[in-house]
Amino acid sequence: MSLQHYFARWLPRIDDEMRETVGAAHDPAHIAFLGMLHYHLGWADLQFNPTENSGGKRIRPMLCLLICEAAGGDPNAAQPAAAAIELLHNFSLIHDDVEDRSDLRRGRLTLWKVWGVPQAINAGDALFTIAHMAFDRLADLDVPPDRQLAVRIRFDRTCLHLTRGQFLDLSFEARDAVSIEEYLEMIDGKTAALVSGAAAIGALLAGSDRVERYAAFGRGLGLAFQIEDDLLGIWGDPAVTGKSAASDIATRKKSLPVLYGLEKSEELRALYTGREIDVARTVKALERAGAKEYTETVASEYTQAAMAALDAAAPQGDAGLALRELAQSLLGRRA
Amino acid sequence: MSLQHYFARWLPRIDDEMRETVGAAHDPAHIAFLGMLHYHLGWADLQFNPTENSGGKRIRPMLCLLICEAAGGDPNAAQPAAAAIELLHNFSLIHDDVEDRSDLRRGRLTLWKVWGVPQAINAGDALFTIAHMAFDRLADLDVPPDRQLAVRIRFDRTCLHLTRGQFLDLSFEARDAVSIEEYLEMIDGKTAALVSGAAAIGALLAGSDRVERYAAFGRGLGLAFQIEDDLLGIWGDPAVTGKSAASDIATRKKSLPVLYGLEKSEELRALYTGREIDVARTVKALERAGAKEYTETVASEYTQAAMAALDAAAPQGDAGLALRELAQSLLGRRA
Repeated sequence: MSLQHYFARWLPRIDDEMRETVGAAHDPAHIAFLGMLHYHLGWADLQFNPTENSGGKRIRPMLCLLICEAAGGDPNAAQPAAAAIELLHNFSLIHDDVEDRSDLRRGRLTLWKVWGVPQAINAGDALFTIAHMAFDRLADLDVPPDRQLAVRIRFDRTCLHLTRGQFLDLSFEARDAVSIEEYLEMIDGKTAALVSGAAAIGALLAGSDRVERYAAFGRGLGLAFQIEDDLLGIWGDPAVTGKSAASDIATRKKSLPVLYGLEKSEELRALYTGREIDVARTVKALERAGAKEYTETVASEYTQAAMAALDAAAPQGDAGLALRELAQSLLGRRA
Repeated sequence: MSLQHYFARWLPRIDDEMRETVGAAHDPAHIAFLGMLHYHLGWADLQFNPTENSGGKRIRPMLCLLICEAAGGDPNAAQPAAAAIELLHNFSLIHDDVEDRSDLRRGRLTLWKVWGVPQAINAGDALFTIAHMAFDRLADLDVPPDRQLAVRIRFDRTCLHLTRGQFLDLSFEARDAVSIEEYLEMIDGKTAALVSGAAAIGALLAGSDRVERYAAFGRGLGLAFQIEDDLLGIWGDPAVTGKSAASDIATRKKSLPVLYGLEKSEELRALYTGREIDVARTVKALERAGAKEYTETVASEYTQAAMAALDAAAPQGDAGLALRELAQSLLGRRA
């Protein structure tokens, strides 16, 4: 079975599991309480009528399911965990949008833009709780209590790492200088923690003795993916990324190539602190400073680390092959 | 052993457990990440230096510990749960302060006033996670895995009820009319859920077969306490409450006596919707409409329901006596 077949089989099940979890908390008297969550998840419009919109690529839950199967477990037991991970991801987006004052998410108004900041904070808290409640169903699937506890404990560790990454990201905005080391630590929390947590939880549910290898695979994958994203934000093809050329330069985002360039080049520091930014000149200066090569090297190192960890974990069968395919599709986006 | 002795014994232990839980997530490189939480919890000043401030009365965690012992359990096993409940309460205060734009909490600047809304939302999320992590220590105390799971599941149910109460409270601000039924449902979530959850978790950890009786006791206690608070907000003695006389009328709070009055009295509706409010005249009109008697009757009904549920639970020993003493001290505040 190919990756495509796995997606075709599992995406509707993940979606059903998420709906069941959110809906289990359903209360007809307070449709708006859950309606805001249905809207955010892409299941309802502003009037809480059902929509056909999809709410994201579901990479993290697929990773959890594939790893559970590839590590010798029953992927059905990972279905509630896959839902928990995707719900957690969506909770973090609700609060991120408030914190960043973002107006749009997946082409629609953000929750806070529609219902205000107080309700958006509270709706995020509700979804955070509901994400935890997804694990309640593990008991129905004959997952041993000890294993259920290990999964919940890993999930909370992941949540805390996520909030620490967000703390760093927010604190960078108030600072002039950010070191490369600090930046890598930030994305380790903000992006890689949830991918790593999804991988570890899949392995835990399989009863695997290679949980930390899968976690390292997820971490490397998350870091490499984010750094590739940094490259795309400057050198990506607008026809492919759907954003304007070098959009990260126009918004003066402190991504990895920029932090490297600021460290190495006096010219760049002058360009970046000027009142208006000359995007084309800045990109050229980054290239002259070797920022592109440097960033490509770092992305490639994390990719290799991820694939080495995956080799060490030795995933089995069709799911193991699909897992490699998923990793390669995520890491080869520029090709 | 009297209630006073129980407080003297347990308050330092609850505090230690909370510090251990928050500190277990400690990372010297990011003192500010946890420093904000230490500040909010009353353990540190704005520069993250230790302070002697106390951070609240710790009623809910005491209830959890006393019920565990009174239901025949080992209260030491309830210590992590007591910490979890108090940390959850404090998480909700961080987000409430952002949502209500409150400047002060326990006489000090609120977290968002010092570090801004984005960091305050994220700090709340971190504390929410850390509250869950308090339960990790149940494993060290030989609490059976099944019981650990039951406690975590009850905790999440409590969290969800809390966010639903907050949703209702926020939604009332945007509405002219709120029914008494809706108001009672709001405080059932916003105030009573956590008291009820603390009680239920204490009983669960004792392995009691009277969990729902203790939960009903906690619920009645929480509702009666909130309604007494509504009475104090209008008829409380400023020398005792520390607030100005009838402060809830000056701020046009829609508390239970007011909602009753608005339903019954044309005069009150006119007074409440006027440009400026005549506090003394409004209080008189409330009294004429029978709002004080009505509210006292409701408070008394919930008090009786709470005490009947406690009788049915039949708490044992010194802890049982201390539990009654705690309930009476909370419900007899006007005496």
